[in-house]
Amino acid sequence: MKIIHTIKELREWRNSVQDVAFVPTMGNLHNGHLSLVAHAKQAAKHVVVSVFVNRIQFGEGEDFDQYPRTLEQDAEKLAKLDVDVLFAPDERELYPNGVQNYFVEPPALQNELCGAFRPNHFRGVTTVVSKLFHLVEPNVACFGKKDYQQLTIIRGMVADLNMNIRIIGVPIERDADGLALSSRNQYLSTDEHAAAVFLYQQLQHIAQQLRSGSRDFTVLEQAATQTLTQHNWRVDYVSIRDAGSLNTAQTQDTKLVILAAAHLGKTRLIDNIEVDLSAA
Amino acid sequence: MKIIHTIKELREWRNSVQDVAFVPTMGNLHNGHLSLVAHAKQAAKHVVVSVFVNRIQFGEGEDFDQYPRTLEQDAEKLAKLDVDVLFAPDERELYPNGVQNYFVEPPALQNELCGAFRPNHFRGVTTVVSKLFHLVEPNVACFGKKDYQQLTIIRGMVADLNMNIRIIGVPIERDADGLALSSRNQYLSTDEHAAAVFLYQQLQHIAQQLRSGSRDFTVLEQAATQTLTQHNWRVDYVSIRDAGSLNTAQTQDTKLVILAAAHLGKTRLIDNIEVDLSAA
Repeated sequence: MKIIHTIKELREWRNSVQDVAFVPTMGNLHNGHLSLVAHAKQAAKHVVVSVFVNRIQFGEGEDFDQYPRTLEQDAEKLAKLDVDVLFAPDERELYPNGVQNYFVEPPALQNELCGAFRPNHFRGVTTVVSKLFHLVEPNVACFGKKDYQQLTIIRGMVADLNMNIRIIGVPIERDADGLALSSRNQYLSTDEHAAAVFLYQQLQHIAQQLRSGSRDFTVLEQAATQTLTQHNWRVDYVSIRDAGSLNTAQTQDTKLVILAAAHLGKTRLIDNIEVDLSAA
Repeated sequence: MKIIHTIKELREWRNSVQDVAFVPTMGNLHNGHLSLVAHAKQAAKHVVVSVFVNRIQFGEGEDFDQYPRTLEQDAEKLAKLDVDVLFAPDERELYPNGVQNYFVEPPALQNELCGAFRPNHFRGVTTVVSKLFHLVEPNVACFGKKDYQQLTIIRGMVADLNMNIRIIGVPIERDADGLALSSRNQYLSTDEHAAAVFLYQQLQHIAQQLRSGSRDFTVLEQAATQTLTQHNWRVDYVSIRDAGSLNTAQTQDTKLVILAAAHLGKTRLIDNIEVDLSAA
């Protein structure tokens, strides 16, 4: 596996190969990321993984500074999976002037769900992903369904800006107890870690009620919010949406996704479950 | 020459060739455009010219509807120059939902000079150019210096979003009397056409004074504005700027550009002259 730090070297490598799958990450790789890599290997001959903690998608007071940087261990994991290139640019390489001047601006969805609590987060994501796409020039790119809103916005960007890249959404990896894997799980204390699966259980409860025919979305959302709050979670949102557009769910919609974001202690966790009622 | 109307056919053609130069236009081709094509032919093995009147870069009350559509004549001119592909998508091909949701948003320069008089114009340009770049995937693209602010913003976008495309700025083509070629010149009456070179003459006058050592930029701008106004022009701006950044010119700057936009009757014309004082 080549470890590449500069744009110049990346472009040289890219000119020498065809058929590339790309997995952009912020590092601190866990089995969720490794599942993305496995899907990438299935999708193309060569695989590039980037590790870059992207300052412009973090807000003030968020965890940019404390976000875990573990490049050496990340490189070991990727080398074992026979990844072709680990692209790990430093900040000056992607933001040579210290600032980004041109942004890929997503539509109003960027201000809903997580976006309502993280101003400018999604335009930071689309902008850096757009930069990385222009650098790696992949045929296909893999994103986790864990960040469901991000995946939806990336799909929208690629379609709307006519990028010639196939996007694969990869299912969420979970701990044995059901907790969705996340780099931020390591912020949790032992007790919090044991309690964290409760968020997923609430989503499962809503999914069950939807499958049983309930369509009173607001009641379901509010009940889960209340239950979480009673168990000492600070809830940003619990929301039932159309799985494709992320528009607020309508009674006749059959492909739904239930999304939630909530704080357990000082840690903000997100999770979601897709519910397909058309097969019922 | 292939005339291609669909994205599907364009991508098929693009997969069959390497080394492509691209000239995006809104059609109604004159010798200025043909000079872009000549530069494109020098720069790469294959040349793609697009003709697309891009609704999202026109403001309310601007000339989108009356903008001249002359595809048949355009195709004849391009075929004579041995262009490989004329890409002429209809609106539904580039805006299948009737709207664009993701925009490439330029920095504050988009609201200066022409941008101060044409809200959202430049983000309409960067967005469609970004779409066309993702479709044509050129190695090099040619833009005219006539639209100097547009060229500067495109250069900025390509650098800032790490697009792997070399941008060539092509000198302005002028009539025998000096009038810069423009599709909008055909809106001029015969009398207006004869009078229109006066804008260029004012820029030449400023250039001469800069070369003679004058650095009182505001006085030069105001004098030209006043003279044009006295000759029945309605002036949007006359502005002396740093040629690279388009920042307001500073006394120590040596590479300058003098830009102007002004209305003659119902027609808005723009022009500019670069002045290099470092060689003096």
